[in-house]
Amino acid sequence: MPLVCYSRLRMTDYSIGVDLGGTNLRAAAIDAEGKILTKITGSTQYSSGRDAILGHIVTAIKGVQLQVTSGNLLGVGIGIPGFIQIETGVVIGSANLPGFDGYPVRDEIQRQLGIPIILENDANAAALGEQWMGAGRGVKDLVLLTLGTGIGGGILADGRILHGFLGMAGELGHMTVYPDGNPCGCGNFGCLEKHASATAVMSMARALSLGDLDVTAEDVYNLAVEGNPRAKAVFESMGRALGIALASLINIFNFPLYLLSGGALGSWDFFAPAMFEQVRKRSFTFSRTDTRIEKATLGNEAGLYGAAYLPFQLAGAEVVAANPV
Amino acid sequence: MPLVCYSRLRMTDYSIGVDLGGTNLRAAAIDAEGKILTKITGSTQYSSGRDAILGHIVTAIKGVQLQVTSGNLLGVGIGIPGFIQIETGVVIGSANLPGFDGYPVRDEIQRQLGIPIILENDANAAALGEQWMGAGRGVKDLVLLTLGTGIGGGILADGRILHGFLGMAGELGHMTVYPDGNPCGCGNFGCLEKHASATAVMSMARALSLGDLDVTAEDVYNLAVEGNPRAKAVFESMGRALGIALASLINIFNFPLYLLSGGALGSWDFFAPAMFEQVRKRSFTFSRTDTRIEKATLGNEAGLYGAAYLPFQLAGAEVVAANPV
Repeated sequence: MPLVCYSRLRMTDYSIGVDLGGTNLRAAAIDAEGKILTKITGSTQYSSGRDAILGHIVTAIKGVQLQVTSGNLLGVGIGIPGFIQIETGVVIGSANLPGFDGYPVRDEIQRQLGIPIILENDANAAALGEQWMGAGRGVKDLVLLTLGTGIGGGILADGRILHGFLGMAGELGHMTVYPDGNPCGCGNFGCLEKHASATAVMSMARALSLGDLDVTAEDVYNLAVEGNPRAKAVFESMGRALGIALASLINIFNFPLYLLSGGALGSWDFFAPAMFEQVRKRSFTFSRTDTRIEKATLGNEAGLYGAAYLPFQLAGAEVVAANPV
Repeated sequence: MPLVCYSRLRMTDYSIGVDLGGTNLRAAAIDAEGKILTKITGSTQYSSGRDAILGHIVTAIKGVQLQVTSGNLLGVGIGIPGFIQIETGVVIGSANLPGFDGYPVRDEIQRQLGIPIILENDANAAALGEQWMGAGRGVKDLVLLTLGTGIGGGILADGRILHGFLGMAGELGHMTVYPDGNPCGCGNFGCLEKHASATAVMSMARALSLGDLDVTAEDVYNLAVEGNPRAKAVFESMGRALGIALASLINIFNFPLYLLSGGALGSWDFFAPAMFEQVRKRSFTFSRTDTRIEKATLGNEAGLYGAAYLPFQLAGAEVVAANPV
């Protein structure tokens, strides 16, 4: 259990974390020691529109709050897949969430609930969650890569999320790994996420005629387990792209820990050897120090924990860095 | 003139900055407002050995101190081309400085002078100098790339140098831009500095039979000015590599400002168009925001200013971020 320094916190304080995922919405009340007091999972469809989604969020928060019978609600943190202008709480450029672009999401939820709300990008929240209660315990500086349909990133420097001047930092899926690589919707060629996400795995499998047109990353994994050399080659290619990006990140940040999370993590055994080979070759910092690249441990819960941690962090709590992992 | 908040500083405080360059050693006394009180330039040869170099540094600091007739010496900052373990003041892995690896440089100079000494990597010091008195005034978050024989980097987040856990952060010259590119002494292939430094310019020129074997980057520049298409192509290649790296840095950091400095900056007009073309294509953050990529303005003085600023920063001075550029 990580130690938390309480400055203005009371032991009975709790917060609510909300994680707005692609198909479901989860919310949990969590106390200052990271204990989940209650948790609910609901479904939400991005296609149902902004007001419906906001309604689901408000309902989920109210539902959780009703189930907590004692203690003081410090605030609510919400992880959202999009850029957040942190100071204004406005979501910008979220391709997945139609109607959210430029909308004052934070203030609107706050108005409906009368509770302090903090918005955060979902990958940033996941990084914070891993630092609080997962694989990043006791580590103040870390980078998280989320390997899903795309690749997201969260960067924690000295225990704080690195936001950049507009809240757009950590777009690690759009680092260029192959300057003449696969085209990306962002306008670039060779983005990391076009070579190492679950979607990239599926594209590579299709190009190798592995399975049907609707082959999934899991299918490719199962083929690799059976020893299929082309399926294995797909994950080696994924590992190489990850290794190229991680080596640059390590040379840039010299952080002690880089975490990988997301659905594609299940194929670690197939992509990790190629990844480590690249990192060793491409980063003298990695090969000469005890820099770690590891699996995140909280799975889908990371974003929930991280969202819930936001009000604690704002209130002055600080996870003690020296706490052993 | 940037505003400096004085917390524990007196107006009469000054500091001494030292910049240990490849062929010369410069030292200056600078006051809290960035005014150079006195400056000396001496020569030093890395080949003369550790004790001689340390002797030159100590002599230079004493020489400067003697010329300042009033005020209180707050401390001395020294920029050194190598990794610095910030907490211990030990230099590690500096290929250019034989005998320095693992040596307690800070404590030894401190012992000889009896003055508080702060060591810093030279590129980090240059970034800080540009922020204090150069092109980065009023900008708390910036990245500096130094384009010389190699490529160094300095990252300032919230006005502080990003060191990483071992002082090795900011090795931006070793970002991979071409996974199968030119081999680098670090063990990698396609490092930025093998495609965009002055040395890379010379290598490309030689491969194109531009001039003699001892062709310099300046010769290539002069050929480009005369309209030589191959010389121009060399700088375009340099610009492309820089653009690929900068696009990734912008996607990672979302900082408002990226500065380029160093000898190769003179060929800006020839490499910048290709650089901006790549950045626009490869970073949606760049193309959708007013992110700036600009020339640093202090030249060789940046490291000197930055080194001198270190004692002020330690003493609690803070350049006011809102100060207009």
